[in-house]
Amino acid sequence: MLNRFFNNAVPMNGFACKPPQSVTPNDFTFSGLNKPGDTANPAGFKVTLVTVDQIPGLNTQGLSMGRLDFGPGGVNAPHIHPRASEMLIVMEGSLEVGFVTTLPETKLITKVLQAGEAFVFPQALTHYQRNVGKGPAVAISALDSQNPGTQRVVAAVLGSNPKLPVEVVAKALQADNNVAAQLLSKFK
Amino acid sequence: MLNRFFNNAVPMNGFACKPPQSVTPNDFTFSGLNKPGDTANPAGFKVTLVTVDQIPGLNTQGLSMGRLDFGPGGVNAPHIHPRASEMLIVMEGSLEVGFVTTLPETKLITKVLQAGEAFVFPQALTHYQRNVGKGPAVAISALDSQNPGTQRVVAAVLGSNPKLPVEVVAKALQADNNVAAQLLSKFK
Amino acid sequence: MLNRFFNNAVPMNGFACKPPQSVTPNDFTFSGLNKPGDTANPAGFKVTLVTVDQIPGLNTQGLSMGRLDFGPGGVNAPHIHPRASEMLIVMEGSLEVGFVTTLPETKLITKVLQAGEAFVFPQALTHYQRNVGKGPAVAISALDSQNPGTQRVVAAVLGSNPKLPVEVVAKALQADNNVAAQLLSKFK
Amino acid sequence: MLNRFFNNAVPMNGFACKPPQSVTPNDFTFSGLNKPGDTANPAGFKVTLVTVDQIPGLNTQGLSMGRLDFGPGGVNAPHIHPRASEMLIVMEGSLEVGFVTTLPETKLITKVLQAGEAFVFPQALTHYQRNVGKGPAVAISALDSQNPGTQRVVAAVLGSNPKLPVEVVAKALQADNNVAAQLLSKFK
Amino acid sequence: MLNRFFNNAVPMNGFACKPPQSVTPNDFTFSGLNKPGDTANPAGFKVTLVTVDQIPGLNTQGLSMGRLDFGPGGVNAPHIHPRASEMLIVMEGSLEVGFVTTLPETKLITKVLQAGEAFVFPQALTHYQRNVGKGPAVAISALDSQNPGTQRVVAAVLGSNPKLPVEVVAKALQADNNVAAQLLSKFK
Amino acid sequence: MLNRFFNNAVPMNGFACKPPQSVTPNDFTFSGLNKPGDTANPAGFKVTLVTVDQIPGLNTQGLSMGRLDFGPGGVNAPHIHPRASEMLIVMEGSLEVGFVTTLPETKLITKVLQAGEAFVFPQALTHYQRNVGKGPAVAISALDSQNPGTQRVVAAVLGSNPKLPVEVVAKALQADNNVAAQLLSKFK
Repeated sequence: MLNRFFNNAVPMNGFACKPPQSVTPNDFTFSGLNKPGDTANPAGFKVTLVTVDQIPGLNTQGLSMGRLDFGPGGVNAPHIHPRASEMLIVMEGSLEVGFVTTLPETKLITKVLQAGEAFVFPQALTHYQRNVGKGPAVAISALDSQNPGTQRVVAAVLGSNPKLPVEVVAKALQADNNVAAQLLSKFK
Repeated sequence: MLNRFFNNAVPMNGFACKPPQSVTPNDFTFSGLNKPGDTANPAGFKVTLVTVDQIPGLNTQGLSMGRLDFGPGGVNAPHIHPRASEMLIVMEGSLEVGFVTTLPETKLITKVLQAGEAFVFPQALTHYQRNVGKGPAVAISALDSQNPGTQRVVAAVLGSNPKLPVEVVAKALQADNNVAAQLLSKFK
Repeated sequence: MLNRFFNNAVPMNGFACKPPQSVTPNDFTFSGLNKPGDTANPAGFKVTLVTVDQIPGLNTQGLSMGRLDFGPGGVNAPHIHPRASEMLIVMEGSLEVGFVTTLPETKLITKVLQAGEAFVFPQALTHYQRNVGKGPAVAISALDSQNPGTQRVVAAVLGSNPKLPVEVVAKALQADNNVAAQLLSKFK
Repeated sequence: MLNRFFNNAVPMNGFACKPPQSVTPNDFTFSGLNKPGDTANPAGFKVTLVTVDQIPGLNTQGLSMGRLDFGPGGVNAPHIHPRASEMLIVMEGSLEVGFVTTLPETKLITKVLQAGEAFVFPQALTHYQRNVGKGPAVAISALDSQNPGTQRVVAAVLGSNPKLPVEVVAKALQADNNVAAQLLSKFK
Repeated sequence: MLNRFFNNAVPMNGFACKPPQSVTPNDFTFSGLNKPGDTANPAGFKVTLVTVDQIPGLNTQGLSMGRLDFGPGGVNAPHIHPRASEMLIVMEGSLEVGFVTTLPETKLITKVLQAGEAFVFPQALTHYQRNVGKGPAVAISALDSQNPGTQRVVAAVLGSNPKLPVEVVAKALQADNNVAAQLLSKFK
Repeated sequence: MLNRFFNNAVPMNGFACKPPQSVTPNDFTFSGLNKPGDTANPAGFKVTLVTVDQIPGLNTQGLSMGRLDFGPGGVNAPHIHPRASEMLIVMEGSLEVGFVTTLPETKLITKVLQAGEAFVFPQALTHYQRNVGKGPAVAISALDSQNPGTQRVVAAVLGSNPKLPVEVVAKALQADNNVAAQLLSKFK
């Protein structure tokens, strides 16, 4: 953030804040979003998020952006951003996107997007994207927080460190303890 | 909300807003939180939330509260409130509580609380409670939104309407499609 | 607050902020709210507030809670929370509650609540509670600020340090200076 | 508020919102603040507040202003603005101003201001002003809400409609019921 | 916005708000951002903004996005967004970008960005972009408001309707009235 | 800001925050606004802004104020406050005021104000004031930020340090490069 009142870099909102005399263009820049993310992983998906961590000048500006790369069949598994809404534009390929509403409806709102189509994921609701085209898919997303955070909801239940109690997981899955234990043990 | 400038009930923030001349104490009241919730269900858990839906006077006030009842072994399965942080006080019994942090840690912060102990669940992070005592357990919770919303994260993945694609669920579970299909088909 | 970007405990919003790797459950916990507050005082009332002061993990979460204990006839004298709305649930006994609206109505909205009844006090308006039952009364309250503050409005007028000028107090009371002086001198 | 998306005057934040094509300068104007307020009243004080009620264009802008007139010895009795901080500049005369901090200090911060001096009253804290000069005093104040509200704290305790219970008032005053009853009965 | 409490489409924040039962994916979608904007105009520039006007589901979500197209030498002339910060990613070509800080520095922070580079324009500061490559340039931008607004600052001074007084424009330009009058008369 | 939880002056929102025990009235005071600003400059205008820089107690209070002095014909050239709305009261003389709306209208809303008249400039929109009386003019303004910032929009285009590219300025002016270069070279 620009603040002419600081003589030194003091914490503002937890991050250092430079006086305007000493800010440089690099404090507001990030490079490399033209490179495809490496999708050679089990999910077939890679995200590059640019937050206040990468661009100090985002401090107090309430924004971040990201690049999402999907191999064929790649999935950005259901997740939330606890401190942000998200909006996404498909740049290349064909993405199925969806989010789920709160109780009592738990309604799935889903759509297949082609390049040039935008979609909104309301604040902190579970959402996903999947490449349903034959080639790679790429999207650019925007989030209304400089520090949105990400939580994959199944990983939060099956893959936390340490693990959740098997009985809690079983009730969540509406399954018995054996099923829950097996899923828990296999999840990395 | 109280606003002396309205001659009629006009929407303020989406909800009707009375002029102060015509508000009554009942606009600020809700009854019945002394009655134990019915925990005779598979989860062994029942929540009674009091939001702007139940108390019109909560409009614009940024708050809601709830009563949580747990039978022995009862579980409030992992869930999020997309628009709120939560704080909870155990009134009776013994509750194990926990929340999971965001990526990359996905760390479980958990504790067993006795009556009189309070705990905080940060905004929109997946959290759960479980009765680990022999009798019933009761808690009072507070949320910093008049309309916090609730989403059970496993239900969002396995129990949405319509269902998520099996391939998406399988990738989320790090399981094969058969396992995902079976969990999806059994989840109500 | 959880923020993975900090390597050390740096101030965030004025309070130290730990990196998620080093947070512990105790950063989110407070104990002792099951013990009745000591109401053997002139007001017959005791409050135990749990704010960011008591629970570091409340930082940035916009919430606090409290336990209110009333002996028979005990009164939580008219006060405001300058930075919060409040919602309250009566857990035991019978409480008369009320708040006063702004000018020009200065209308008292009041109600006698039994156990299990909830009530809302809008942001920063003068409000009070009084035990009108024969035994003790207990309530749990929630406030939508991590640092709500409390100001007893009569104490602000009669009991500040140093004291307000007697002429100001007299005008406020619509009384003469002698009455004001006497009230000022007796107020501790 | 200006919003080009509305074809008609629809409520925005509870107030009508015109499309920019039809706004006029008068939607942003208020007249008459050059006229001294009439201070021929027991308080020797008169305030003229200009809020969203007087200027529709203040809607969503988070501001209001006022003119304060004091006769010699005039007092703006201790009061709060539940939804605003206040800043004041003395235009003429000599004003003693003060505010009281929250518990546990209940500290009075006070100062005598001459023309050209500014002072800040933090959000929703009890504060007052008094003319300590020989002639009239005038101040201009600013508040950071389009609808700040005002509550005179002694009037909230002694002059509400209906009246507060005498026992509550007595405890607040640290006086006996007779004193409280007398003050209550005399307060208009 | 999704809000389960509404039976009909009532205004929320000035825009209609559907109940979740009746929302459809189209309420969250916008199409056509893959088509290059028509840059055959004097500026050599075209922006396509997607705000709450285009996507009803953006209501209350605090976000909007846009596509910026530049012909060779095309310029997005200095402008502000009065209600938003902006972040931009260059998708194709080479853009010189810059913003100017507030008084007293009025410092230009500028950089030439290649495809894959991101840049931040702090809230409501004057900024511009220019295509400094030989071919077309394309960028995707994000703004942290559902209704950010845009004001070209030179057009606000030279091209308002009605026009600003020539003396005001002359003083702003540090030029004489003749120069100001000529610029005013030529500006469309 | 007053915060009883700090034992030392630690940064809160980037500014030092004292514990209430050690705050003094001077932390909330600024002097000298009764002195006319020196308008013997080319603009015939002088502003004295009082922000958190001048009054530490404004920290977290969301407010600032200023005094505006105009010689005959003096102009406060078109400018924005990137982080604030503004409201103004004319104290003496006669001021023409105006602001310009966003695209696509770019409509000028203007009015001549006499002493005692108030006007609102919506958030971050370009606005100006001009003395259209024969004597001096004085106004008091309020802004809803403790750190509103000011940017003269023509100075941002013609007078930045370093200068904007001449081609960008020419396009903004809808003029050729020679005109732009001349204006740029003369602007100090």
